[in-house]
Amino acid sequence: MIGGGPGAFIGAIHRTAATMDGEIELVCGAFSSDPQKSKQAGETLNLDPKRIYPSYEEMILQEAKLPATEKMDFVSVVTPNHLHFAPAKLALENGFHVVLDKPMTFDLNEAKELEKVVRTSGKYFCLTHTYTGYPMIKEAREQVKDRKLGEIRKVVVNYPQGWLSNFLEASDNKQASWRTDPSRSGKAGAMGDIGTHAYNLAEYITGLRVSKLCADINIVVEGRKLDDDGAVLLKFNNGASGVLMASQIMAGEENNLTIQVYGEKGGLEWKHSDPNSLLLKWPDAPMQTLRAGTGYLGEAAKHNTRTPSGHPEGFIEAFANHYRNFALCVKASVDGKEPKQEWLDFPGVEDGVRGMAFIDAVIESGKSERKWTEFSI
Amino acid sequence: MIGGGPGAFIGAIHRTAATMDGEIELVCGAFSSDPQKSKQAGETLNLDPKRIYPSYEEMILQEAKLPATEKMDFVSVVTPNHLHFAPAKLALENGFHVVLDKPMTFDLNEAKELEKVVRTSGKYFCLTHTYTGYPMIKEAREQVKDRKLGEIRKVVVNYPQGWLSNFLEASDNKQASWRTDPSRSGKAGAMGDIGTHAYNLAEYITGLRVSKLCADINIVVEGRKLDDDGAVLLKFNNGASGVLMASQIMAGEENNLTIQVYGEKGGLEWKHSDPNSLLLKWPDAPMQTLRAGTGYLGEAAKHNTRTPSGHPEGFIEAFANHYRNFALCVKASVDGKEPKQEWLDFPGVEDGVRGMAFIDAVIESGKSERKWTEFSI
Amino acid sequence: MIGGGPGAFIGAIHRTAATMDGEIELVCGAFSSDPQKSKQAGETLNLDPKRIYPSYEEMILQEAKLPATEKMDFVSVVTPNHLHFAPAKLALENGFHVVLDKPMTFDLNEAKELEKVVRTSGKYFCLTHTYTGYPMIKEAREQVKDRKLGEIRKVVVNYPQGWLSNFLEASDNKQASWRTDPSRSGKAGAMGDIGTHAYNLAEYITGLRVSKLCADINIVVEGRKLDDDGAVLLKFNNGASGVLMASQIMAGEENNLTIQVYGEKGGLEWKHSDPNSLLLKWPDAPMQTLRAGTGYLGEAAKHNTRTPSGHPEGFIEAFANHYRNFALCVKASVDGKEPKQEWLDFPGVEDGVRGMAFIDAVIESGKSERKWTEFSI
Amino acid sequence: MIGGGPGAFIGAIHRTAATMDGEIELVCGAFSSDPQKSKQAGETLNLDPKRIYPSYEEMILQEAKLPATEKMDFVSVVTPNHLHFAPAKLALENGFHVVLDKPMTFDLNEAKELEKVVRTSGKYFCLTHTYTGYPMIKEAREQVKDRKLGEIRKVVVNYPQGWLSNFLEASDNKQASWRTDPSRSGKAGAMGDIGTHAYNLAEYITGLRVSKLCADINIVVEGRKLDDDGAVLLKFNNGASGVLMASQIMAGEENNLTIQVYGEKGGLEWKHSDPNSLLLKWPDAPMQTLRAGTGYLGEAAKHNTRTPSGHPEGFIEAFANHYRNFALCVKASVDGKEPKQEWLDFPGVEDGVRGMAFIDAVIESGKSERKWTEFSI
Repeated sequence: MIGGGPGAFIGAIHRTAATMDGEIELVCGAFSSDPQKSKQAGETLNLDPKRIYPSYEEMILQEAKLPATEKMDFVSVVTPNHLHFAPAKLALENGFHVVLDKPMTFDLNEAKELEKVVRTSGKYFCLTHTYTGYPMIKEAREQVKDRKLGEIRKVVVNYPQGWLSNFLEASDNKQASWRTDPSRSGKAGAMGDIGTHAYNLAEYITGLRVSKLCADINIVVEGRKLDDDGAVLLKFNNGASGVLMASQIMAGEENNLTIQVYGEKGGLEWKHSDPNSLLLKWPDAPMQTLRAGTGYLGEAAKHNTRTPSGHPEGFIEAFANHYRNFALCVKASVDGKEPKQEWLDFPGVEDGVRGMAFIDAVIESGKSERKWTEFSI
Repeated sequence: MIGGGPGAFIGAIHRTAATMDGEIELVCGAFSSDPQKSKQAGETLNLDPKRIYPSYEEMILQEAKLPATEKMDFVSVVTPNHLHFAPAKLALENGFHVVLDKPMTFDLNEAKELEKVVRTSGKYFCLTHTYTGYPMIKEAREQVKDRKLGEIRKVVVNYPQGWLSNFLEASDNKQASWRTDPSRSGKAGAMGDIGTHAYNLAEYITGLRVSKLCADINIVVEGRKLDDDGAVLLKFNNGASGVLMASQIMAGEENNLTIQVYGEKGGLEWKHSDPNSLLLKWPDAPMQTLRAGTGYLGEAAKHNTRTPSGHPEGFIEAFANHYRNFALCVKASVDGKEPKQEWLDFPGVEDGVRGMAFIDAVIESGKSERKWTEFSI
Repeated sequence: MIGGGPGAFIGAIHRTAATMDGEIELVCGAFSSDPQKSKQAGETLNLDPKRIYPSYEEMILQEAKLPATEKMDFVSVVTPNHLHFAPAKLALENGFHVVLDKPMTFDLNEAKELEKVVRTSGKYFCLTHTYTGYPMIKEAREQVKDRKLGEIRKVVVNYPQGWLSNFLEASDNKQASWRTDPSRSGKAGAMGDIGTHAYNLAEYITGLRVSKLCADINIVVEGRKLDDDGAVLLKFNNGASGVLMASQIMAGEENNLTIQVYGEKGGLEWKHSDPNSLLLKWPDAPMQTLRAGTGYLGEAAKHNTRTPSGHPEGFIEAFANHYRNFALCVKASVDGKEPKQEWLDFPGVEDGVRGMAFIDAVIESGKSERKWTEFSI
Repeated sequence: MIGGGPGAFIGAIHRTAATMDGEIELVCGAFSSDPQKSKQAGETLNLDPKRIYPSYEEMILQEAKLPATEKMDFVSVVTPNHLHFAPAKLALENGFHVVLDKPMTFDLNEAKELEKVVRTSGKYFCLTHTYTGYPMIKEAREQVKDRKLGEIRKVVVNYPQGWLSNFLEASDNKQASWRTDPSRSGKAGAMGDIGTHAYNLAEYITGLRVSKLCADINIVVEGRKLDDDGAVLLKFNNGASGVLMASQIMAGEENNLTIQVYGEKGGLEWKHSDPNSLLLKWPDAPMQTLRAGTGYLGEAAKHNTRTPSGHPEGFIEAFANHYRNFALCVKASVDGKEPKQEWLDFPGVEDGVRGMAFIDAVIESGKSERKWTEFSI
């Protein structure tokens, strides 16, 4: 693991998610750019002191020299955005599979460059867009793919948060500090941090691609340097329309990402506040509530569930689904076997490039006086 | 009553809402442009045959000649949009107060003209934007007015319906027929029919005024002549941003108008599917669910409730609140008294003019390649 | 109307519910045992002064002398329980149909006596168990009757209120005063006031009859004279089991009557807090949410709805459904016609007798050391 | 780990829950009474072949001989009920801490015996009543302890399942097979399997103790040997009343354990279907929704949460909370330190004895013709 030292939020989530299914063991790490902090974090995690590294470069290069049976199988990179590209590239080039936190890179150029590195390396690459790990999101995708809703006409995806309603970066909140800092976060704030999740979710479920958009991008809190609120009108490649909202100043909201998709024949709705349910709405029949862990779901949902219906799974399990699928692929690779199709269902480098292009497009559109900005890569 | 004959939807709602509180009695009507149908409708309603009129003109002119103690006190106009202006104007000019269904007129010119007629007449005028009749909407408005949420930053209002997902106007559905017909409905479909409700609700609760907007207006169902789907980015006069959605092709949706308003200090949420609750969300305290009929609500909510908490009131009661307040004002007028402030809280001609201007602006914006269209009257 | 003067709660509900559909007009009343208060109430309601009576006896006897076209068609009795029997009996004996508030009488003897009077009179009699007036309760009953759930095995009905958590009868709260007073309310408090509603609902939906029961009846608030809390184990005539709860000391609860019914094949759930939805739960298929106003419901639900789906109807409309069906029957009677089957679907004297027998049985069981008390009439 | 081989449900949950926080590593196991199956299971779990044992006796005795730094620290027993006592006893007597699945033993005698063994051994003992591991249950307990609701008056706890609606034990469903078999499950079916959870939850949150009860215990599905449905009236040691329901024939229900507790001043409600929320209801103030992961919660809730609010945690995390607290105590013990008070908050042997006594009492009461059965241990 690279990053995830003291004060980090997502590092601990990655570790728990990675290890909960017994497929993955944390064996080494460079947890901070400060060697002392890295050491301390590694000790807390009961790592072999020799494998707690002062820097990611050293970790990758040292581990690469170890015998195949000893060295780490893959690297998780959980640093702030500006420190995604370099360690991911180095790891891939040294023969390691990579798990990387989103958004994929600091800017679109890095993203396209990383895409090439991934393709060249032949290694597995997973981008942790958590929400597509939920079983009911998998089910939603299958429902759409199976044409249950007919041709898709309308998508509404909303990612409301309220934690940046105040000028929190003035305090010593580590999360607020880097996520609102253009030199570490990139050119987008809320749109990069959570807008990309919403965007990814919409494309994942519908199988459609955004073709143009019109963004209203705002800095609401005085003194802030990056957008903390925005709304985007979307057009998809089949002609469908959409609305995407992402805000971190909706005071009182937690993290209730929601998506609604409507086709000719019906609609679906999913809410992160009730992640084990998927609503299917029909014009002439009762709404149905599909539930995780039941027998009537498709294979994708079933493969990504651990417990029977009525035993709620949550954020960590969704995260763990990506790790488990990734680990199953890595293991197959180690064993020289082909992965099953369902294991390959984790977000990859193409999602990452599209996400970075989305950031570019919304930020450009936000500044433009034209209504529509073309979205292509 | 003018309109509301066979096949009408809203006419019956008006009648029930008007009479349920015992303040109003239906005494005469011109229920259809077809005298025979008007007669039939009036008989079904047990009206005095002499006061069932073959046309609205005749009704207004005849009633105007009756002695004050006998003649009707006010007129309700519940015809399709293109038949709003003329009867309303004639009624006002003949000394009758008027209740009129929304949107107010066929176009903005008529609206401005009607505004003058109302002002000149000195009569009461009520535009039946139902949703502002709900007690928890009144409470929401008071919470904002009392600065409980601090300065408003963000408004999201969504009015999803699905009943026009198919080309229903090809059948003999009377509602679909006129609401999708430019010659009867005006220049907007969904945006006129339900978008104006959403717009009115947003301005009512926040007390803000939309200053510019950017609309994506769509005709989704092939063959349809008016918009059946749209989304609008909003800017308000205090700098707040907003998103308004109105669609009649969200297959499987009923009529679940929702609104969320966020300020510096907290947010509120209301859903038509649970109209007796108002959610208040706070960054550092538990969410509160305020309920209609409770003792802790403000005076406006209390005045517009009939039953104790836990006894749900619905659409008809919300509608009836406008009628009751209107009737109390009319009665005060008849008695030569001043109305109480709380009775005056029903939508009026200014709401109507703003609504028609909103239609003009969104339709213009929908066609424009510029992002923002100024919204002023 | 008899009763429903100043300070009453249910009188106003009766009036609104009765008149909202335009089938019923209030023409006379004896609103209080105090002639002065009766007069005052009648004037507020704009009644003809001649038909505001100082007592119910005078009203019934005077109205009986009026010509058929002038006299009232039926009487609504909305007094406290101890004043149900006498006016209802007198009205029936003088040729008037009767609507009576629940529980039907002061005790079971009166109930049985009244049943005889009703049968002898040949008049229509409606007992206002509001909750069976909801369209989704009608639908629930049809689902059970159509064997959609298979043989019924389990019923859970819960009626939680919190308004008597304190010794409210010490204040001058009129409702608390008579409802906790054995000389006016009868031998039961919560079990009579709301337990009978829950009991009636369970029998109405399932079509089953309670055959024995075991009650835990409590007086929780010190100084109170009647039960304010209770739970009852039920056995039905087909062998099904049940639990009925009724409490007025569940602090913080409003009036959220809920019922769940389970059969061999599935279950259903209805909650008064969301009265326009009916949940159907299936072991091997997604839960369905049936909604009032939709096209897929049965005839009973449709007949008892006024608005399209998504336009919530509430307590007053449920109440009004009983009144409307009753009025349609009365009107048919006046016209010498047979009522339609669906109009006859309002609670009658048999429900009333069973309700009073239920009160007797639970109070007896509450005092008994035996587990089961037989329930028969 | 003892038990948890092929076909088991709870074994995998235990493993995931135990390891997810990085405090615990699975080092050895006897996963089945069939040595072959045990071996196979251990290999799947990547265990050292030497530490996959053919029987629990061998495992405990062999591990006991290993050096302190090598041998296992504690044993998890996840077998059916009839195989709880012996391995737990043996483990404790050989110096191992023990985690044991509920209900604690086959009968009350074993439970009392085991209690003595635990006390004598001085080892930590955890009984996995999952639901008390949820952070919002901890918060509920603190709210009651802090007298926020005042003196408790009423408890309603309901544990509905539907998976045994059919005679599932006729198929080769391993779960149905042993849970309905008196020789493996003990004298109770649903009451033992899930009724004890509900009972434990009620006592945990309220801090009260059941003093007498009246049970209706049913075998609904023909041919079944143990109760699959029941309802119990409760009296607590402070005079409060309660109702407990536990059923496995509520067709269509998943696993939605719910509890409501009412005191003089307010009520609380928690539902397993929305485990990260706790509702607080007040007579004269808006209902509050407390949410896991927020800053305003008490220390107990905070200590048992991994993610910020809005990132749902579920069943596995609740389970893991018990394991983590237990592991922290074991580790402190190994290090010769005192555990923190908050670490000791996991269900123990006293809960187990009370649970077994509860089973005895409800089964006895179910057969009794007396209403009340005293409940003491």
